Amino acid sequence: MWVNEAIKKLGIRYPIIQAPMAGGITTTELITSVASSGALAMIGAGYMKPDSVRKQIREIKKQTTRPFGINVFVPRPFSADLKQIQTAKEILKPFTEEDIATEIPTFEKEQETYEAIIEIILKEEVPICSFTFGLPAKAVIERFKEKNTILIGTATTVKEAIEAEKAGLDMVVLQGSEAGGHRGNFLHDAEESSIGLMSFIPQTVNQVTIPVIAAGGIMDARGALAARCLGAAAVQMGTAFLTCKESGAHDLHKKAILTATEDKTVMTKAFSGKWARGIQNEFIAKTKSRQSELPAFPIQNALTKGIRSASSARNSTDFMSLWSGQSPMLAKDQSVEELIQSLIKEAEEVRGLL
Amino acid sequence: MWVNEAIKKLGIRYPIIQAPMAGGITTTELITSVASSGALAMIGAGYMKPDSVRKQIREIKKQTTRPFGINVFVPRPFSADLKQIQTAKEILKPFTEEDIATEIPTFEKEQETYEAIIEIILKEEVPICSFTFGLPAKAVIERFKEKNTILIGTATTVKEAIEAEKAGLDMVVLQGSEAGGHRGNFLHDAEESSIGLMSFIPQTVNQVTIPVIAAGGIMDARGALAARCLGAAAVQMGTAFLTCKESGAHDLHKKAILTATEDKTVMTKAFSGKWARGIQNEFIAKTKSRQSELPAFPIQNALTKGIRSASSARNSTDFMSLWSGQSPMLAKDQSVEELIQSLIKEAEEVRGLL
Repeated sequence: MWVNEAIKKLGIRYPIIQAPMAGGITTTELITSVASSGALAMIGAGYMKPDSVRKQIREIKKQTTRPFGINVFVPRPFSADLKQIQTAKEILKPFTEEDIATEIPTFEKEQETYEAIIEIILKEEVPICSFTFGLPAKAVIERFKEKNTILIGTATTVKEAIEAEKAGLDMVVLQGSEAGGHRGNFLHDAEESSIGLMSFIPQTVNQVTIPVIAAGGIMDARGALAARCLGAAAVQMGTAFLTCKESGAHDLHKKAILTATEDKTVMTKAFSGKWARGIQNEFIAKTKSRQSELPAFPIQNALTKGIRSASSARNSTDFMSLWSGQSPMLAKDQSVEELIQSLIKEAEEVRGLL
Repeated sequence: MWVNEAIKKLGIRYPIIQAPMAGGITTTELITSVASSGALAMIGAGYMKPDSVRKQIREIKKQTTRPFGINVFVPRPFSADLKQIQTAKEILKPFTEEDIATEIPTFEKEQETYEAIIEIILKEEVPICSFTFGLPAKAVIERFKEKNTILIGTATTVKEAIEAEKAGLDMVVLQGSEAGGHRGNFLHDAEESSIGLMSFIPQTVNQVTIPVIAAGGIMDARGALAARCLGAAAVQMGTAFLTCKESGAHDLHKKAILTATEDKTVMTKAFSGKWARGIQNEFIAKTKSRQSELPAFPIQNALTKGIRSASSARNSTDFMSLWSGQSPMLAKDQSVEELIQSLIKEAEEVRGLL
């Protein structure tokens, strides 16, 4: 595989980053396996509590001396409209017999958790930190720069990538429309910011000077080398790592991806209030017509939490959020080492095509 | 650039196909310039009358001995619901002071035109014929095979590509979600069939044995080589040729693309009754909320024809269909020769990145 300044800066062997998937997927086992494989491991701290973040960072440090990174969600102001919450509860009623969560997240609390996690990342000196759903404040960036932390933004449009560079971030992940999970858009709406990587990468590298990392639908050497041709310095893969043996994703989630076809992923905001790509299921289908009435992220996410866990607890994918990129047919039930080694090996063959 | 069996079979020098854009874009000047450049020129016969098709084929043959191809729309059954037409006329009223077309297309007439064009293509022995919106009937395929015509299908999902191979077509164009103009989906709805090329190409080449041609957002050597890494035998470019000096696209259309950003293309079915990607404008914005009420293609297309031409006649893009892929920022005001030569030259540099 290619080597460049971005790879050297990240201290990794291969230009491959494991996407910081939130929600229990990036277990310490996954992180250490990815780090050992020569790719960059990333903790998805999105929904984690500060204490768990500190604990996992320390656990990882005991098990590996290789660099790893962490991703945080940048909170954006939101408020709880009581009528909207009532409507959401009505929409969600057919999916549960339990009471729907009444503890509604507030922006203040989200901001507090975010700030606490930032302090931990600084104190524990995690060498790489990436951000989703927005850009960190100037003061936060300055504090990280004092520690020489490598900062990575997430963009879904050229303008968002330009903003990440202007803010002083070192690199930027370009999230193509192919990507699974939540859209990282923060300046545009979902439609404007669903750009296929074939279009997104070259248009962005013409406008920014920081290295760009391609994310969305990349599962093997073909995707990695394609992203490189388009101008990416590295690739970030989510779904490909999610189905690995070491990932903490629910077995039903892995199985759903391993048996899905490329036409079965859809965009929905019914799970969390923010658009995200996942495998079509009953919950998505039945809430589709009323998506616009739901409260914003992370309120809707809190409201559906019980429904999602109850579904997985009874071994049913019907109401689970089965996040997946658009390439489920390329997913494999394998170890991280197998994923990385086969990618590296196949890269030679792909290069031979040109 | 790479050479393979598919390129040899098509009789071209470079693995580049000019997309058969309908609506007056593929003038004889464009076709002969593309043929001279070493790429494959394609007539977009979509809305043409049989006589014009015959005339253009003969005109081209007088000017070049190089191979060229033609694309036809495969008619699909549709019917005119009078109430729906009345609703459409009401929705369209704010956009015109003229009477809205009362000559409503019928499936029988569309089928008749299609059959007449097929006869002409057979008789004139055009060496390459591609199909959009569906697959040709078995009998049509057999007649083409007797003439050794190379047949190319258009697919928007893996299943559609598999069907194209099963039907006996020689190659298949994979239309990624990045592509401008009409979606070619015929087995799936628009959402299911909006797959980014990064995902679409590798998943398809794992399932079919015929060569695949990548289409959508590809504008230069970066996109072409990326498509090759993903498994494509050749690329088909629309928007890149549309803004060329030789194309017959309206100057306002060219200018709209040349000044657009990647976040400004949207999917709409308000122009024709079929989903298509174009640059956001007043017509799209104002019809958005009522798209589901409009009649099917090509009825809605007939109803908006006057509105579109009147808009361009008064030099306004407000009500024009400004089809574009997701890479308008890579479009250039250049000749076909410049487009192809710079692509070939840059291919060496891109190859050097790997």
